Amino acid sequence: MPDWTLGELAERLGAERVGEAGLVLRGLRGLDEAGPDELSFLAHPRYRDQVAGCRAGALLLRPTDAELRPAGCAALLLEDPYLGFAAAMQLFHPPLPAAAWGRHPAAVVAAEAQVHPETWLGPGVVVEPGAVIGRGTRLMGLCWVGAEAHIGEDCLIHSGCQIRERCVLGRRVILQNGVVVGSDGFGFAPVEGGSIKIPQTGRVVIEDDVDVGAHTCLDRGTMGDTLIRAGVRLDNLIQIAHNVEVGPGTLMAAQSGVAGSTHIGAECRIGGSSAITGHIRIGDRVSIGGNSGVTGAIPDDRIYAGFPARPHREFLQQAAALARLPELLKTVRELERRLAEAERRLAGEPGAPAGEEKKHA
Amino acid sequence: MPDWTLGELAERLGAERVGEAGLVLRGLRGLDEAGPDELSFLAHPRYRDQVAGCRAGALLLRPTDAELRPAGCAALLLEDPYLGFAAAMQLFHPPLPAAAWGRHPAAVVAAEAQVHPETWLGPGVVVEPGAVIGRGTRLMGLCWVGAEAHIGEDCLIHSGCQIRERCVLGRRVILQNGVVVGSDGFGFAPVEGGSIKIPQTGRVVIEDDVDVGAHTCLDRGTMGDTLIRAGVRLDNLIQIAHNVEVGPGTLMAAQSGVAGSTHIGAECRIGGSSAITGHIRIGDRVSIGGNSGVTGAIPDDRIYAGFPARPHREFLQQAAALARLPELLKTVRELERRLAEAERRLAGEPGAPAGEEKKHA
Amino acid sequence: MPDWTLGELAERLGAERVGEAGLVLRGLRGLDEAGPDELSFLAHPRYRDQVAGCRAGALLLRPTDAELRPAGCAALLLEDPYLGFAAAMQLFHPPLPAAAWGRHPAAVVAAEAQVHPETWLGPGVVVEPGAVIGRGTRLMGLCWVGAEAHIGEDCLIHSGCQIRERCVLGRRVILQNGVVVGSDGFGFAPVEGGSIKIPQTGRVVIEDDVDVGAHTCLDRGTMGDTLIRAGVRLDNLIQIAHNVEVGPGTLMAAQSGVAGSTHIGAECRIGGSSAITGHIRIGDRVSIGGNSGVTGAIPDDRIYAGFPARPHREFLQQAAALARLPELLKTVRELERRLAEAERRLAGEPGAPAGEEKKHA
Repeated sequence: MPDWTLGELAERLGAERVGEAGLVLRGLRGLDEAGPDELSFLAHPRYRDQVAGCRAGALLLRPTDAELRPAGCAALLLEDPYLGFAAAMQLFHPPLPAAAWGRHPAAVVAAEAQVHPETWLGPGVVVEPGAVIGRGTRLMGLCWVGAEAHIGEDCLIHSGCQIRERCVLGRRVILQNGVVVGSDGFGFAPVEGGSIKIPQTGRVVIEDDVDVGAHTCLDRGTMGDTLIRAGVRLDNLIQIAHNVEVGPGTLMAAQSGVAGSTHIGAECRIGGSSAITGHIRIGDRVSIGGNSGVTGAIPDDRIYAGFPARPHREFLQQAAALARLPELLKTVRELERRLAEAERRLAGEPGAPAGEEKKHA
Repeated sequence: MPDWTLGELAERLGAERVGEAGLVLRGLRGLDEAGPDELSFLAHPRYRDQVAGCRAGALLLRPTDAELRPAGCAALLLEDPYLGFAAAMQLFHPPLPAAAWGRHPAAVVAAEAQVHPETWLGPGVVVEPGAVIGRGTRLMGLCWVGAEAHIGEDCLIHSGCQIRERCVLGRRVILQNGVVVGSDGFGFAPVEGGSIKIPQTGRVVIEDDVDVGAHTCLDRGTMGDTLIRAGVRLDNLIQIAHNVEVGPGTLMAAQSGVAGSTHIGAECRIGGSSAITGHIRIGDRVSIGGNSGVTGAIPDDRIYAGFPARPHREFLQQAAALARLPELLKTVRELERRLAEAERRLAGEPGAPAGEEKKHA
Repeated sequence: MPDWTLGELAERLGAERVGEAGLVLRGLRGLDEAGPDELSFLAHPRYRDQVAGCRAGALLLRPTDAELRPAGCAALLLEDPYLGFAAAMQLFHPPLPAAAWGRHPAAVVAAEAQVHPETWLGPGVVVEPGAVIGRGTRLMGLCWVGAEAHIGEDCLIHSGCQIRERCVLGRRVILQNGVVVGSDGFGFAPVEGGSIKIPQTGRVVIEDDVDVGAHTCLDRGTMGDTLIRAGVRLDNLIQIAHNVEVGPGTLMAAQSGVAGSTHIGAECRIGGSSAITGHIRIGDRVSIGGNSGVTGAIPDDRIYAGFPARPHREFLQQAAALARLPELLKTVRELERRLAEAERRLAGEPGAPAGEEKKHA
């Protein structure tokens, strides 16, 4: 882990420096853990109370929070301390270079595969005929690369991934452990008493700078391709069905799923455990709350939640109203009783006797 | 990919031919992509508008849609064009035969295993003692076959599957990548401060012609077996708990789950991301909507949805009513006010003054 | 499978024996399957009717159920027959010892790893430099153990698991197939048009006596650790995000998920397919119903359900009230009509004509 001076960090992060340029910082930790030779940060107002007791050597702060820092603590002032934190984490924890290029003796590479010499294929990596692996890419171990699959440059494929035949990964793609790229889509035509399998002949195409989480499954297209656009970030255990397109820069949280042929726009935020039905279009910059069930199209720039998913404000109103529903049922029953009584009086009948009223009370 | 003439296709699909029997078709693509030497299809009214601009050489159509086809485009008329599409896909994309029978030098096969010579065991396949693998079956690579597991004939096991000890697969079973067959069921008996593990001594038995999707988990029975009946199709990332039975011909979409000892009937359709509780019985030909939570038994031939799952019509009514609930709360509040006013008048009191009414408005 | 006499079982289970101490029992099966040389059990009143026809040699029963047993059937009486069943299963199915200690020739172990000689590393196990594997631990096959990972004593790691660099497993940890320990947490800081990855520099630490289900993913902490406390039981396909803590003795059922930095207390019961949001605290001994969506903190000793999760009693009331909502809408419409009529009469106007009333009926 490299050290950085306060001055270097200010320059790299585009932050205003408050303190000695030469102050050496050896790492980055949380407000309650960082010591005098470490950097820390305040990204969320929730943690403001912890700043006073913080022992860090320097803090990433909003300019408006500059006065919060304890005496003797330096600061780097910038508008988005969380982004500053992310950038500082990258500086303190640069991606490890491969220990060496080459292939482990326990990797199994078909003679007809095209593997750039500056790659690393760990033990138990299998590369089938016609597969291409670009310069700077590492497959850590126990990974399958199917026939004619194409993996671009500078990818990092963690152990246990399965990349099926003819699928394509762009540059700087990161697959966490156990990702499946190109499993058959779920295509069956119903027949009397069962179903027949529809061959899934398309591919999965993953563009540049995509991250895919552990055990996420990307099904190949039935005809044509399943597309994961540049800069997409997929969390763990996500299901992407055949012929789905996920637009550039979109983030999907864990255990969410998208059914077949749905198109998701650019820069969306899809909450965890949410389910999106097939054959619909989700616009750009759409946010979908966690645990939602999306049953129809959503235009650009909306925030949806719930099941069936609806505008977030409606979801909150309905959830609040639902909490009052048992009480409402009682109120309406009481209204019915009182109205019947009023009607009796209007009709010139005597009111219900006292005993009768008690029964309703 | 084999070519087919229009005449051959008409015969194979049982379709009425409109056009030259000798017309050669080299593939099958969507309405907006197919060219003059390709077949396309109209399976859903949603896409009727695209037919006029279609450049395909021939179209699969319902007889009642025959007139939609552009001039010069041949047709194959049949009642279920989607089924015709599935069958035509199988003709244009027949299952690839194994490149060769045998085993890769990097497969690890116990001496005591019984592996038919006409099988393919790819690199990194591990077969433990007493396992049996039938004729025509392929394990692509990096798969584990536990002791005394039994895999039938003509199965296709994609890379990364784990088939545990004593589990049984029938004939023509297809496992997509990363399927787990026979993990321990989740059986723990509560004790003060924790729980003790109940050994899971049963098996998973998969009958003939079953497809299982990527990363789906099938737990072995506690005692007795977990059963996946003939013709079942399971999508990706599904959980099947111990001692569940899934009836013949049933389809389950991705990320659905079934808790322990539940029996699902024949030819059901279970939507994606739905969760089914344990120890219940789901009848035959039941449809369960996506994202549902099933908390009790369901008789034959029902359509259920929502959480708690209920008849689909009720689910729709309740969802629609819920959307009107915030407005209903206001209506009832207003009714209360008006009724109180009516009651005052009936009692001979003067009405509320105007100012008072405004406050409620 | 060892045999046990009724006398031995009574002593081991702390049960009152009714029958010959020397009766030999050779196994344990369900009420409808057990034969004269087998033990069975009645743990749930649901199955009382099956006892009369049971052919088992002996039954585990509550003392108050002693009279249910058929003539000639012995009994072991104890307060918690399900716990007795679990203990008896452990006696009849003791954990198999390793066939041998050592390593398969197809295991790949870095020279710099510290592997105790009394371990078993199956075919396709990869152990990276600096990893430590304790005495009595077995890795069945096709598992990855990353650099400087530390696996304690007497663990059982089934095939297909990925244990990433620097993660820690305690003693007697069982991982079902395909578990991922230490994948990168989902940490990205939003920037114009996309996001930048936040390096995930923490670990996963699993304490003693933890079980983890197939394909469950445990993400490493961003900074600091993700913690799985002693005695936790996780089912299949669960997502545990970065910096989550799961308290001792807690059980989580399949397909549930916990978002980042949430702390779950001790001895909780989390239902299947439930989703818990990030940055909250769930108390001790909390039960969360299946398919719930938890959106806020929950104090100790509560039972919650639904989405948004709320006290279980409220959830049931609201679900019941929701079922009556369409009818309520009609009732309120009718009340409005009747009230308007009453108001007209009070104002001295004539009532609506009969035809008018019929229209509303």
